[in-house]
Amino acid sequence: MIDNLTKIAKDLPATVPFVGPETQERENNYKFLARIGANESVFGPSEKVQDAIKNAAPLTWQYGDPENFDLIDALASFYSLKRENFVVGEGIDGLLGYLVRLFLEPGDRVVTSLGAYPTFNYHVVGFGGKLSLVPYKNFHEDLSGLIKEAKKVKAKILYFSNPDNPMGTFHQKKDVQKFIDQVPDDTLLCLDEAYSDFVGQDELAELDTSRINVIRFRTFSKAYGLAGLRVGYAIGNSTLISSFNKVRNHFGVNKIGQIAALAALEDQEYLRKTLISVEESKLRIKSIFSKMGFSSLESHTNFVAINMGKDSNYAKNILTELIKNKIFVRMPGVAPLNSFIRVSAGQEEDLRNLEKALAEIMRKN
Amino acid sequence: MIDNLTKIAKDLPATVPFVGPETQERENNYKFLARIGANESVFGPSEKVQDAIKNAAPLTWQYGDPENFDLIDALASFYSLKRENFVVGEGIDGLLGYLVRLFLEPGDRVVTSLGAYPTFNYHVVGFGGKLSLVPYKNFHEDLSGLIKEAKKVKAKILYFSNPDNPMGTFHQKKDVQKFIDQVPDDTLLCLDEAYSDFVGQDELAELDTSRINVIRFRTFSKAYGLAGLRVGYAIGNSTLISSFNKVRNHFGVNKIGQIAALAALEDQEYLRKTLISVEESKLRIKSIFSKMGFSSLESHTNFVAINMGKDSNYAKNILTELIKNKIFVRMPGVAPLNSFIRVSAGQEEDLRNLEKALAEIMRKN
Repeated sequence: MIDNLTKIAKDLPATVPFVGPETQERENNYKFLARIGANESVFGPSEKVQDAIKNAAPLTWQYGDPENFDLIDALASFYSLKRENFVVGEGIDGLLGYLVRLFLEPGDRVVTSLGAYPTFNYHVVGFGGKLSLVPYKNFHEDLSGLIKEAKKVKAKILYFSNPDNPMGTFHQKKDVQKFIDQVPDDTLLCLDEAYSDFVGQDELAELDTSRINVIRFRTFSKAYGLAGLRVGYAIGNSTLISSFNKVRNHFGVNKIGQIAALAALEDQEYLRKTLISVEESKLRIKSIFSKMGFSSLESHTNFVAINMGKDSNYAKNILTELIKNKIFVRMPGVAPLNSFIRVSAGQEEDLRNLEKALAEIMRKN
Repeated sequence: MIDNLTKIAKDLPATVPFVGPETQERENNYKFLARIGANESVFGPSEKVQDAIKNAAPLTWQYGDPENFDLIDALASFYSLKRENFVVGEGIDGLLGYLVRLFLEPGDRVVTSLGAYPTFNYHVVGFGGKLSLVPYKNFHEDLSGLIKEAKKVKAKILYFSNPDNPMGTFHQKKDVQKFIDQVPDDTLLCLDEAYSDFVGQDELAELDTSRINVIRFRTFSKAYGLAGLRVGYAIGNSTLISSFNKVRNHFGVNKIGQIAALAALEDQEYLRKTLISVEESKLRIKSIFSKMGFSSLESHTNFVAINMGKDSNYAKNILTELIKNKIFVRMPGVAPLNSFIRVSAGQEEDLRNLEKALAEIMRKN
């Protein structure tokens, strides 16, 4: 029967884009002291959001509204756009899967940066697409390189994440604006803005929904502290957005996620507090590593990319030691980014544990 | 850009398999008095489950475990099977999508019953499959008809739901066992057991995980009262099950859903109470309609299919009137099933409202 898998599925590995920290905890038979590896928001959802979740507990027998109406309504008014410009899905991950499925025929080309978001690549390969990978330039995604490659291979989709993950770097509004203008008409620009809450909203390219070949992705998983509830959304031209209705799992977004995301969006004061905590935490992370002689990239996200100064093996070794010391962190997967370690903003206690572990490791290294 | 949709996507309608009750509420500018149309469990999740949800509220900043380890561990021990025999996903809906994607090349044939689960058909069409529809026989899915058609069209997938939705009928263990034996080797039997908690576990076909061409789907959405949290699972041969890892959204199941489902599985006493409430409620529904001269099918689920006695227009008219009277119910979509109305088990208050509305409607009809 397994011989009956589709041609594409037969060739796919049964691997996970990311190993979860829980897997590492089970393997090592411990609990992490600091969970600062997946760019989750340790500052959590606000009290108001937690109350909304608790109040919704008795309602979980009901399917969520398949139109995600209340949340989309709030998003439309938040952004001063129309409801038709939004689709809500099971995190950006889920929406990226739908996007790839809608546009990619087997063999179609997709351009992204070498070392960028693995889950996007997972979807592309999963639908038979062919990836063209453009190296980072000075730890930034290479805008002109991406455009050049998209033109060269006649890319169906061009993926660009701003602010970037895993390096945390950022391209200024005017450069992104110019970049958008250069995207070929037949290429769909998939602009992943999962970390856009961490920069000023006036630093982001205009939300121009007249463009049919640009789609923006945002989420409640990062700054709003709701990664576990799987609510992301896309913003774009209404014709493009409505095509998601052809393939999405209409009842796929869970009801508590819908309710919590709405409450989170309404609690902008808490978001501002979170952003301050994140900035303080990033300074502290930089200082911890700086004391040990390591420099960091300027971060426009909720994590810091630390330059471990030597090669990938060295960085990997330190990472392994941190994991052994019950500090959950991650590192970029490919050269030359993989001489870095990526540390997410943490609570003070997380960072004390990180500092202690790092000091011990460095004594021995 | 929309011209760039895949060949399959271009031809897909942007329609919803089901209209949600919230959409009807918005259109009519009211709230339903009784929400008994989507086979949700109005009896809700247990107090213990609600407590688990409330306690998990502060943890929603964490992604759920991509392995769904704790839940799968509990399922394995509940069924005395191995962890490798289970995959957990975003409801049965999500898992059906993955299954279809894994096995269906465009043009491949799929056999199901005419009038069976629309969301399965949505996935099949969504991946370019061709449906062969076998009529119900005496309001039961036609086992020998399904096998015959599967052989005739060399079906890649054969879908069969037992207990059945939307009619609530059931095939006995020995007949299902025989049916399974007759499934062609090259056909994957997709046995949807969303409603299996409503029959005795000894009435269900054996869970024989040595069979590579059978997969069973179960859920926390129905008897366990967690439709809103989107947690379903499949049981099958470990080789078959592991193929889901090639395409599933590994971080797709939300953390509260994982925690709530685990708590629900552990609270079997509450499940037993729910089953008693469901049986009482179904008797009451039958009696309400019987007083008005309508007979019902024997139900093995949490809903009752009421024979409205005349043609589809008549049933549709009564349904429309019930909706107008703020009673959310649904009816099967195709002949000859569409002379029925489907009513889910409700609380006593729901059923009083149903009774009142029906009496009024029948006075006028």
